[in-house]
Amino acid sequence: MSAFTPLLEPRSIAVVGASTVEGKTGNVILSNLIENGFGGPVYPIHPTASEILGLRAYPTLSHVPGPVDLVFVVVPRELVKEVMEQCERKGVRAACIVSAGFAEAGEEGAKAQAELEAIIRRSGIRCIGPNTIGFVNAQTRVVGSFTPLREWRAGPVALAAQSGTFCGALADELLALESQRLGFALAVSLGNKIDLDEVDFVTYAGANPAVRVVALHLESLRRPRAFLDEAGRVAREKPVVVLKPGRSATGARASASHTGALAANDRLVDAGFRQFGITRAYDLEEFLAYIKAFAYQPLAPGPRVGIVTWSGGNGVMAVDEMAEAGLELATFVPETERRLAAMLPAWQPAQNPADLWMALGSGNRRAHEEGIGAALDDPGTDAVLAILLPLPITDFPEVREVFAAARARHPEKPLFLTMIGGPVKRRWMTELEGLEIPIFSGTRLPVLALAAMERYRRYRERGR
Amino acid sequence: MSAFTPLLEPRSIAVVGASTVEGKTGNVILSNLIENGFGGPVYPIHPTASEILGLRAYPTLSHVPGPVDLVFVVVPRELVKEVMEQCERKGVRAACIVSAGFAEAGEEGAKAQAELEAIIRRSGIRCIGPNTIGFVNAQTRVVGSFTPLREWRAGPVALAAQSGTFCGALADELLALESQRLGFALAVSLGNKIDLDEVDFVTYAGANPAVRVVALHLESLRRPRAFLDEAGRVAREKPVVVLKPGRSATGARASASHTGALAANDRLVDAGFRQFGITRAYDLEEFLAYIKAFAYQPLAPGPRVGIVTWSGGNGVMAVDEMAEAGLELATFVPETERRLAAMLPAWQPAQNPADLWMALGSGNRRAHEEGIGAALDDPGTDAVLAILLPLPITDFPEVREVFAAARARHPEKPLFLTMIGGPVKRRWMTELEGLEIPIFSGTRLPVLALAAMERYRRYRERGR
Repeated sequence: MSAFTPLLEPRSIAVVGASTVEGKTGNVILSNLIENGFGGPVYPIHPTASEILGLRAYPTLSHVPGPVDLVFVVVPRELVKEVMEQCERKGVRAACIVSAGFAEAGEEGAKAQAELEAIIRRSGIRCIGPNTIGFVNAQTRVVGSFTPLREWRAGPVALAAQSGTFCGALADELLALESQRLGFALAVSLGNKIDLDEVDFVTYAGANPAVRVVALHLESLRRPRAFLDEAGRVAREKPVVVLKPGRSATGARASASHTGALAANDRLVDAGFRQFGITRAYDLEEFLAYIKAFAYQPLAPGPRVGIVTWSGGNGVMAVDEMAEAGLELATFVPETERRLAAMLPAWQPAQNPADLWMALGSGNRRAHEEGIGAALDDPGTDAVLAILLPLPITDFPEVREVFAAARARHPEKPLFLTMIGGPVKRRWMTELEGLEIPIFSGTRLPVLALAAMERYRRYRERGR
Repeated sequence: MSAFTPLLEPRSIAVVGASTVEGKTGNVILSNLIENGFGGPVYPIHPTASEILGLRAYPTLSHVPGPVDLVFVVVPRELVKEVMEQCERKGVRAACIVSAGFAEAGEEGAKAQAELEAIIRRSGIRCIGPNTIGFVNAQTRVVGSFTPLREWRAGPVALAAQSGTFCGALADELLALESQRLGFALAVSLGNKIDLDEVDFVTYAGANPAVRVVALHLESLRRPRAFLDEAGRVAREKPVVVLKPGRSATGARASASHTGALAANDRLVDAGFRQFGITRAYDLEEFLAYIKAFAYQPLAPGPRVGIVTWSGGNGVMAVDEMAEAGLELATFVPETERRLAAMLPAWQPAQNPADLWMALGSGNRRAHEEGIGAALDDPGTDAVLAILLPLPITDFPEVREVFAAARARHPEKPLFLTMIGGPVKRRWMTELEGLEIPIFSGTRLPVLALAAMERYRRYRERGR
């Protein structure tokens, strides 16, 4: 049993601070728990209400007739200590302390947090928070979060974030079309990490077969050495992506006031991450790009990228960025050049990066099917980036069919798409939903993602 | 009269190579010309057809009864020379040579291009191309492009791109909701620059009062010194943004095969751009961010940025990126801290960057209105970045009203938004349409854009 098991796999749940008012945190959590199909009993705890959202409510934890595995604590700071003592008496195994105002809130808050810590240490209750927005476990259907997740779907990502609201909004963004509806298996807002932390999370997510990518947003490392060891161990099996800000001194100060944690020396963090095969992202868009790339695509067998482009200009930019990122521009074999040249005017070169605008003359569907197919078939390419211009004049009806076939043809090679355009682009994105081909709006992010995958492949190979 | 005037302000137009087949280049250009309200006569030239798209067609240019100012040349490479000779005889003032296969297509193509050059030099016909997709001039309603622009609207951007398809797709993308429907006054695909080039374009766009931002995608500088001088001169009045790839040696080679142009030493380009106040973008998303920022917002009076955030984690990242970009984190005056603190729990700091998640307790509308308002009102902020989490729990009905008021309150300070979220984010983006507040999905691009604006402000101040 991992340290996270009591929290993420409860058989019964109570919400202390359940609210009768729609929209209030203590009401949203309760409603999320009920509506997402958690199988066990859920007990609202409220000083006066006898029923909330159709469930019988109890004045305190000790009034609950059966055992309680997990408690959500959603009361003002002043009351948290008392609630935790009640948890101890009730034999609760895990707590999610949503209440805020602890280590992130000055001296008084730090003192209050130290008091909680003592209770937790002696009782053995496993906790996330304080200052967390909760968590989601797709397998046990526990949606214990105070942001409602309207287009929820389970998926291959395990997400942990220190910053609570960050975690919730990110989950919402991951689930949107623009992020290609990247579902998640686990999402945990770690909060102030009074007990469970990123190391425990990496262990749990690493062992969970539903998880393909472990993604963390961290403002501080609570146990740096243990984290590197554990993330490095898990990274032998599956990618670990970490969004870690705090590069600058002002950033580090801002981080301290945000989560009450001191940032480590950033250069050490960088070096450590590289050594232990951890992919570091420096901002949100990079983070999402890496998650999408690792979740949706296999690792390339090598660094050689083939580029087919309907925009010569963006092809040039991709080549530029590849050179900086340490990737190689593949050399197409003669057969590939022959296939591409067959669609191009005699004067146009068919080398990598191949500009296929003129290939549209052979038909929009054929140009895409054969162009991307030829680059994937080439024994000299380890991955393919196709830069598309979904426009009325490049459009064709069988977009999904063509890309599904391309994906199925060489499932061992990553295929990334850049799409530039307006309404037709949005339609193509919708048609490609579910094919798990990462789509980007420029060339920087797919190239960074391919480079991150290549670094990760080398890390895994070194370990063999 | 500028060199671009004959091309961009014609009184009559012919399309040589007009096609009767829907979807063919020579048909799309004709249809775009007709449907977008060009006021003068349009003559399709076709060897056999007597009518195309309801217009009387003529077998050659010389059969056209009246004068022809501008000719679109959409014939196979082999026929272009002859068409240009006909243009010369007809007294045509400008030509848009769409046909490809010239300098970008090896030795034979280069020879063919040299022949065209001779004709152009002796005739004085002003040309864009070959290898162009055409151009758009909103004022004269000439949409002479072979990508259909379905959601066309005029706006403050003048766009010139070397790569034709790049220009067309970019126009489509600029007009989409995701790009906040950035309209353009001018869009010109320069092509191989046999005659008119980026220097001429900058001159024309600089003098055009409808243009607020001059944006260029260039793979090569045809006349580097003249470009720097002219762009630097125009930049005293309005921002010039250039997307210039070719940093790496492989990128430079790819560029040469794409447009037949040799890339200049990249470090010289960088230094020259800085000296002459030109904002350089390194990839498409940066380019769009800069265009949007300059087009929609005033220059900040200084480098001090105030940040209000509903996601502490992203606030920290923004601070990090600001420090790297050379911006300053503003120090809020006591009055601002007092106003923010009034919405926050006693334990929470109200310094910059202010984490306003807990301010939601004072109501979602009030938190946004007062939070962003306080940062804008602060005499110590020169610009404000608000990092928003449009989620069901942060939502409120008067989103447009609140942001319109914020914008009107301090029109002299740039206001940038970062939005993280799913469906609610999309609704907010729709509600904010037309308010000209740039919206981003992460913190990197708005910070880069604010830094670019600050560099540009300093350039303008040095000139005074």
